[in-house]
Amino acid sequence: MSDIEIARQAIKKPIAQVAQRLDIPEDALEPYGRDKAKLDADFIKSLGGRKPGKLILVTAINPTKAGEGKTTTTIGLGDALNRLGKKTAIALREPSLGPCFGQKGGATGGGKAQVVPMADINLHFTGDFHAITTAHNLLAAMLDNHIYWGNALGIDSRRVFWPRVLDMNDRALRDTVVSLGGVANGFPRQGRFDITTASEVMAILCLARDLDDLEKRLARIVVAETRDGTAVTAGDLKAASAMAAVLKDAIKPNLVQTLENNPVLIHGGPFANIAHGCNSVIATRTALALADYVVTEAGFGADLGAEKFLDIKCRQAGLTPGLAVVVATVRALKLHGGADDKTLDKEDVAALLRGLPNLLRHVENLGKYGLPVLVAINRFQTDSEAELKAIEDKCTAAGAKAYLCEHWAKGGAGAEALAKAVVETLDKGQSHFKPIYADDLPLTAKIETIAKEIYRAGNVAFAEPAKRRLKALEAAGHGSLPVCIAKTQYSFAADPSMRGAPTGHTLPIREVRLSAGAGFVVAMAGEILSMPGLPRVPAAERIGLTADGEVDGIF
Amino acid sequence: MSDIEIARQAIKKPIAQVAQRLDIPEDALEPYGRDKAKLDADFIKSLGGRKPGKLILVTAINPTKAGEGKTTTTIGLGDALNRLGKKTAIALREPSLGPCFGQKGGATGGGKAQVVPMADINLHFTGDFHAITTAHNLLAAMLDNHIYWGNALGIDSRRVFWPRVLDMNDRALRDTVVSLGGVANGFPRQGRFDITTASEVMAILCLARDLDDLEKRLARIVVAETRDGTAVTAGDLKAASAMAAVLKDAIKPNLVQTLENNPVLIHGGPFANIAHGCNSVIATRTALALADYVVTEAGFGADLGAEKFLDIKCRQAGLTPGLAVVVATVRALKLHGGADDKTLDKEDVAALLRGLPNLLRHVENLGKYGLPVLVAINRFQTDSEAELKAIEDKCTAAGAKAYLCEHWAKGGAGAEALAKAVVETLDKGQSHFKPIYADDLPLTAKIETIAKEIYRAGNVAFAEPAKRRLKALEAAGHGSLPVCIAKTQYSFAADPSMRGAPTGHTLPIREVRLSAGAGFVVAMAGEILSMPGLPRVPAAERIGLTADGEVDGIF
Repeated sequence: MSDIEIARQAIKKPIAQVAQRLDIPEDALEPYGRDKAKLDADFIKSLGGRKPGKLILVTAINPTKAGEGKTTTTIGLGDALNRLGKKTAIALREPSLGPCFGQKGGATGGGKAQVVPMADINLHFTGDFHAITTAHNLLAAMLDNHIYWGNALGIDSRRVFWPRVLDMNDRALRDTVVSLGGVANGFPRQGRFDITTASEVMAILCLARDLDDLEKRLARIVVAETRDGTAVTAGDLKAASAMAAVLKDAIKPNLVQTLENNPVLIHGGPFANIAHGCNSVIATRTALALADYVVTEAGFGADLGAEKFLDIKCRQAGLTPGLAVVVATVRALKLHGGADDKTLDKEDVAALLRGLPNLLRHVENLGKYGLPVLVAINRFQTDSEAELKAIEDKCTAAGAKAYLCEHWAKGGAGAEALAKAVVETLDKGQSHFKPIYADDLPLTAKIETIAKEIYRAGNVAFAEPAKRRLKALEAAGHGSLPVCIAKTQYSFAADPSMRGAPTGHTLPIREVRLSAGAGFVVAMAGEILSMPGLPRVPAAERIGLTADGEVDGIF
Repeated sequence: MSDIEIARQAIKKPIAQVAQRLDIPEDALEPYGRDKAKLDADFIKSLGGRKPGKLILVTAINPTKAGEGKTTTTIGLGDALNRLGKKTAIALREPSLGPCFGQKGGATGGGKAQVVPMADINLHFTGDFHAITTAHNLLAAMLDNHIYWGNALGIDSRRVFWPRVLDMNDRALRDTVVSLGGVANGFPRQGRFDITTASEVMAILCLARDLDDLEKRLARIVVAETRDGTAVTAGDLKAASAMAAVLKDAIKPNLVQTLENNPVLIHGGPFANIAHGCNSVIATRTALALADYVVTEAGFGADLGAEKFLDIKCRQAGLTPGLAVVVATVRALKLHGGADDKTLDKEDVAALLRGLPNLLRHVENLGKYGLPVLVAINRFQTDSEAELKAIEDKCTAAGAKAYLCEHWAKGGAGAEALAKAVVETLDKGQSHFKPIYADDLPLTAKIETIAKEIYRAGNVAFAEPAKRRLKALEAAGHGSLPVCIAKTQYSFAADPSMRGAPTGHTLPIREVRLSAGAGFVVAMAGEILSMPGLPRVPAAERIGLTADGEVDGIF
């Protein structure tokens, strides 16, 4: 059965019953249909001061075509902890609608480790991303409108940074000219559309502590500069309050359930390259206030997702993770070891051993943050005993125990060994979390620290415009912000073809952008697409409705 | 108090209680928050075969700056019918989000005749428009993607008709170039963005009978032509099924309530110029199955909105309205009579008498459709007794009784006289509804019929490209479709400065477009903007949140 078929057969509980598992009263729920709800703002406020539960980060090796199953493992681990009688909440990111129509399919787990209602969550869900699209584009419209009506702020139309966004894979919008057609339509200029997940508004929503903090951050967004380089903000355009009004419901976390009826908060979904790739701070803190154990994930591999989770999200929100789980699969490690993607079904211990350093380095890196680390082997049917044993042995030798997980086939029962180890490790209280760099390190040194400590680059090559920009940002008082490196997810290096565990490579920093509202500086390491395209045969061609009016074709 | 302040103080009933008023069982509701719900698809299906209630159309004189209050009167009349003990449902259009940030403010009534939750309905509501935006732009992305990957269908990129859409007032997007930036981004071509309400997908959603009909209509959308003029459809691009999946919840009508807790179905909101400007057929038919009386409205003045309601919506859906109410105000009629908009507070019976022919002609036009007609005078505080009496006398002389309505100040109680007259008139059963032209009349003759019978034009001037297009559409088998004339709403003529009741003018038909999915041919009479802009000081600047996190600043 396909994932969506399994999901359609789920025996869902009414969302109020799922909420009871976390002692959320029914009047704190704002229902969206029968199986989704938002948590009321007053209820969330009332949780302030509660002792937080323990925070578990699920991350992974560098992604490959073979798939790793990070979300699936996060769900499986959460179900397993619930099976052990632990009061556990899962905190995930919302899937982006656009990629659903492309290649990627759903982002709500797989097999027997899924969250439901699967199709709803993958399509519009509770409208959060639509609200972000609207807030973002309202600011864009107000910016061009300001120029149109006389440009009192003196915006230099060559220095407009603020794109428009759509939650769609549409390469035709990557590079556009707008305001053509004469006097009534404004002043022609080049512009671009990003996908909504790449919007700074998305990052802001995910890092804001509350609605008030959200509005203040929105006001700080730098949308353009004047001819003399003065920053023009959303606050200057008087757009922040209306944007906050547009986002007043989107900021509330969404409650759904796993196939095993365990509670899941799904909220926010910023890109893990040009943004920080984690679910919202509000949802994570709410989950921590409600549950004893919270399992969450970060986008892409640990070099991108976990690094940003720890250095940006945990730093800004004052979160202290207790443990990290690194997910790997035999198939993906064989690809890292140079195996052909057509022969992954065949045993190949040699390729596996060549690929294992990718996993081991992520384990070592997470240790640098002071975190205990466990490895989850997300089992596929084609994995051989010899391959599985090879991973376990090498991990044990490196001081990180590996656990075979079968949640895809068996649900929470398949991840109980991992869950027990998680509980035991957390009980020992061995986390001494600290970020990899200090706030007061200069921006350039922060980038160099990540490059050397995490990516194991030999050196960083800053392009001249990037150097100038970093200097200007330091001068403008943004030097204490953390950095968010936009880099390919497929390698530790900036070159996606460098699999395994490369060292001594050069990290090129091509461009630097300020996300003053989100509160970080983006350093672009190579070409990073912020608007995907559709493949030759888009998934949209097979998405449709069953005779009963149910969505089909999302995998 | 402002409208939004009144709305915030509303004592709302739980939506399930509001549903009970129409005998809708609780399990037929899909809640969205606590005070909004969608009606379940199976429930709607189960209503088939019920004897429909009586349908009342509320329309208006040509709009002016002064405001007429058509939506407000629709709500007031619905509340009044409920006060009289009549089982009544109100069926309205959903407001567009974009114009909220511009000049227009809310579109949920005013004073004591409003629907609530006001801010929610004006902002994202239940996400219907966002779903329409997504479905529309998915088709656009699939079209450019098809060209990118080899263009097997042979689309002529100069003959792409399908724009992109956003629910935003953004003049910078009226005329754009897309796919710049080289090989990876596709083939550069000109393109445009319309506002979402102008999307053919919106018109289709509003005219479809059910999800199945929706998908078939979506497949018929003509998006482009090949070099030899062959139509390329959404079906050819294999986009229709995914679009239907995206719209599966948007097609379900939304239930909310008036300030007096009476049930309102709000669903769909197509532009009343390049589309047909009425709420959805599904919502209207559902309301007719559930209530004895259904009050609905059509966009702009009766020349645009009522004409399309009667000739497009009622024709396609087999609806038979029992009665039309034409709304007018003293202030607006004085503007039609040439009064200065700065002195509208002063009595000016002469200007009023000069403007009255606008109202009387709409009354006469509606009579041509075989409908009984009543006039509603939407009272303002500044109206003088002499002015009110002048309207009443002239209407009586023209055979259409006028009723003074004070629902804005008094709620349903203020429209009881009108409601009683509505019931009495309907009881007499004097409606002999028939459209103004027959299906088998050629397209050109249909346009001429509307021009002469409704607009009272002396002649129609077809531009050469329009003539050629009409000929081609007849040849391609689209001749039996109704026509949808896109014309300024401010005048019977195509010139917005021609107030009152002009005759003998020329109606210029500049361009003709096929909406094969919606099932009509659009004839553009003059320049029609399908993407509005923001004013010098956008309403967005004053929209924000109160200290309690409630939306403020929508008027």
